Amino acid sequence: MDAAEFRRRGKEMVDYVADYLENIEKRQVYPDVEPGYLRSLIPEEAPEEAESYEDVVKDIERVIMPGVTHWHSPYFYAYFPTAHSFPAMLADMLCGAIGCIGFSWAASPACTELETVMLDWLGKMLKLPEDFLAGTEGRGGGVIQGTASEATLIALLAARSKIVKLIQADHPDRSETDIISKLVAYSSDQAHSSVERAGLIGGVRMKKMPTDSKFSVRGAALQKVLEEDRAAGLIPFFFCATLGTTPSCAFDCITELGPICNAEKIWMHIDAAYAGSAFICPEFRPLLNGVEFADSFNFNPHKWLLVNFDCSFICHISSHLISLQHWQIPLGRRFRSLKMWFVFRMYGLKGLQAYIRKHVGLAKEFETLVRADQRFEISADVVLGLVCFRFKGSNELNETLLKRINRARKIHLVPCQLAGKFVLRFAVCARTTESRHVQEAWSHISHLASELLQELKNDISMSNRHLLRLSQNQPIVNVIQYANALESQGSQSSIHTLRESTG
Amino acid sequence: MDAAEFRRRGKEMVDYVADYLENIEKRQVYPDVEPGYLRSLIPEEAPEEAESYEDVVKDIERVIMPGVTHWHSPYFYAYFPTAHSFPAMLADMLCGAIGCIGFSWAASPACTELETVMLDWLGKMLKLPEDFLAGTEGRGGGVIQGTASEATLIALLAARSKIVKLIQADHPDRSETDIISKLVAYSSDQAHSSVERAGLIGGVRMKKMPTDSKFSVRGAALQKVLEEDRAAGLIPFFFCATLGTTPSCAFDCITELGPICNAEKIWMHIDAAYAGSAFICPEFRPLLNGVEFADSFNFNPHKWLLVNFDCSFICHISSHLISLQHWQIPLGRRFRSLKMWFVFRMYGLKGLQAYIRKHVGLAKEFETLVRADQRFEISADVVLGLVCFRFKGSNELNETLLKRINRARKIHLVPCQLAGKFVLRFAVCARTTESRHVQEAWSHISHLASELLQELKNDISMSNRHLLRLSQNQPIVNVIQYANALESQGSQSSIHTLRESTG
Repeated sequence: MDAAEFRRRGKEMVDYVADYLENIEKRQVYPDVEPGYLRSLIPEEAPEEAESYEDVVKDIERVIMPGVTHWHSPYFYAYFPTAHSFPAMLADMLCGAIGCIGFSWAASPACTELETVMLDWLGKMLKLPEDFLAGTEGRGGGVIQGTASEATLIALLAARSKIVKLIQADHPDRSETDIISKLVAYSSDQAHSSVERAGLIGGVRMKKMPTDSKFSVRGAALQKVLEEDRAAGLIPFFFCATLGTTPSCAFDCITELGPICNAEKIWMHIDAAYAGSAFICPEFRPLLNGVEFADSFNFNPHKWLLVNFDCSFICHISSHLISLQHWQIPLGRRFRSLKMWFVFRMYGLKGLQAYIRKHVGLAKEFETLVRADQRFEISADVVLGLVCFRFKGSNELNETLLKRINRARKIHLVPCQLAGKFVLRFAVCARTTESRHVQEAWSHISHLASELLQELKNDISMSNRHLLRLSQNQPIVNVIQYANALESQGSQSSIHTLRESTG
Repeated sequence: MDAAEFRRRGKEMVDYVADYLENIEKRQVYPDVEPGYLRSLIPEEAPEEAESYEDVVKDIERVIMPGVTHWHSPYFYAYFPTAHSFPAMLADMLCGAIGCIGFSWAASPACTELETVMLDWLGKMLKLPEDFLAGTEGRGGGVIQGTASEATLIALLAARSKIVKLIQADHPDRSETDIISKLVAYSSDQAHSSVERAGLIGGVRMKKMPTDSKFSVRGAALQKVLEEDRAAGLIPFFFCATLGTTPSCAFDCITELGPICNAEKIWMHIDAAYAGSAFICPEFRPLLNGVEFADSFNFNPHKWLLVNFDCSFICHISSHLISLQHWQIPLGRRFRSLKMWFVFRMYGLKGLQAYIRKHVGLAKEFETLVRADQRFEISADVVLGLVCFRFKGSNELNETLLKRINRARKIHLVPCQLAGKFVLRFAVCARTTESRHVQEAWSHISHLASELLQELKNDISMSNRHLLRLSQNQPIVNVIQYANALESQGSQSSIHTLRESTG
């Protein structure tokens, strides 16, 4: 393919992309395929001879699209959002064309320099303390990582390196392996799995801290475990605070934790992967209060700031001599700051704030709908764009409801566990989600819930009359409690019947 | 920006990209800017209000392009190539539009499944042993990583995990930290810096093995150090072999090393980041002989197989219970296999082989030009697309020549050190490099070399007559030897003068 053909095919692809996104609502949000579906649709080996572009393009709808989960459909409410915007896509086309590998200044000066300035722009949008910015001095400041997982690992490794040097300064005879074998890191029991993995990779103990009723780590909990661990001869060195946990978007109390970490010379890293983008709004910025105690801070503009994946932001305070810019796993890197530059300019700070506020508003709207239905409960404070909710009933009943929702393929959700309870997560994800989608999603969920309860009731009345007898002796007021009663009596036949029929 | 505007802007961007690539030869390959050039060209903060797309696009030529090192210019011969093709760029546009995050099968089945099949296609192209393929059993097989750095780290961590389990099976009382403190990994003294870093991150000793006159690690060298280390109570567990080293594209002798590693239960990982792509050609496949002894194998299609960055291939043998698919640093991942699918189909195996052969042919052509010039020598076997060469003279003289080459901005090269010698690396990089560019590059280098030698001669004849006197007593036959004689006599004034004038 030469440049002339690329002009033609590229424009066709632009139209395909625009068509795909304009009509994404018409596609089923979650695919019907079974594991292994794709292998039989394409040859077992690469072709010897070149194929035509037409043949390849034809296969997008035949092979790929039937197996795509459409993350940018306004019916997608699973996981957390992943960012998606036209300006970011345009910038990514440019990034691909320049195709430089920015592993050093000389490898492409514009790549290194735009990144430094864009991360300062971002730091200023977040009103980070001055010593988190690069400015013209270049001591603090940020670097783009691929993901929050990498950022957490890098922060932990930097902290590990720092504590080893600190201890060896006083005890030159202590070996690195000996020191590392005594190190202990901490995170919330709500923290993302990548935090635990960072500990595994770094070869250090990682303890999960208990959280309070709001799923937040509090100062007292940390203080307690630090005393125990120091008494046991361990060396606490790293605390990974989460702002906006994956299960419920809970916030560790960094205004309490930060001063403890500072006093105890523990590196405090903040993982705000999802929530971080919201801090550009003054009304959400207080959630970041306490950042001034942190040693490093990370969030993913590729989640909620309209900058397509991958683009994770990590910055660290300038008082450290360690520069995180030398702490990266990959050496090569794309010219990712172009995406930030295009997005920040074409939305402007006000446009970005409006986007965050719209998503939070939609979550609040969904919360109101849930609260208005007596059969349901809200399982965690709705602070940003995530609503955790459930049937007032057993875990199995909620699991069945979720299976039916996802089996219906109209919308897509994933669950979480909160304090032992099976909870449904409704995350506002797509850029194009509007009030009508949220209303439609709720009416769909509500309808499936009614159906489920009706079936359960029929099932109970037909095949579990002995349990109904039991219920007459108890203050059972609704069918959910029937179901719970069934379960607590050890007879789970109704639920099991349902589960088998729904998979 | 809505879809309608994206249609328009996207097509404009396609044209911009095509224009850029069609005319890339006219751009100076290496930029003129000084560090810090960019900050003053753009505002200190993100704009409050949205800007127009026109304003952003205008700044590409004003702000970005003056600071770009043009990796895809046919005058770029630095580092190693980074892949770049129109089919890969088209696929990447689609990847951005789908914008799924493929961290699990359900998160987007097509993303997981196409990746598995594409890596099998690739494994078959390379004629890897059957147990490196996923097939329908799914035990071996590959996964796309971002970079070779990540792949090496992952392999080392998997090996670390395996050895710890193995030892603990026999000695349940030995702690993980105790075992890790005794571990030792090995690589070539020519290995990439990321291998050493993998050891640092994994918290294990990493020893660099000496290489032979061809810059290859040999079996005897490994055998020797293993005996010493076992005698010292250490536990050898990992050997990272390099096929195609960064400095000179040398090949560790894996047919000797592999059997030793297997006998000693050492995980052998092969890093073939650059050279791996060439193994799709039958005539280069013998360089991979010995892979049957390896536990894992990695190379970067994003270097030399026309699949734009990032796309690094790692696979491992199916007899391991550890699945590397669970060993990734980032959780999120783009739909990167689309790029492989487009490229493999639109080039066909024959097209890809022709591309590799063309680059190797161009390197051989350059080698012939160098060998025909008595002033120069070839510093390492030219096996693939890299030529290491130098003046027959001092390191300083070669350093000066390289500075003049890069200062002239017509072509761009980087150096390496080989056995203490300063060597120039000429790597065939761009897809569009043709014979005429190589001829032009050599004639330019040759011209600068003549200029440099003439200046040196003038300098010597004018200001160092006392040394010329010395030369008359010695069998000095050319001006390079004059320069060497100057240096060996401790009078480096000529060279220093040159260095100051050229920076």
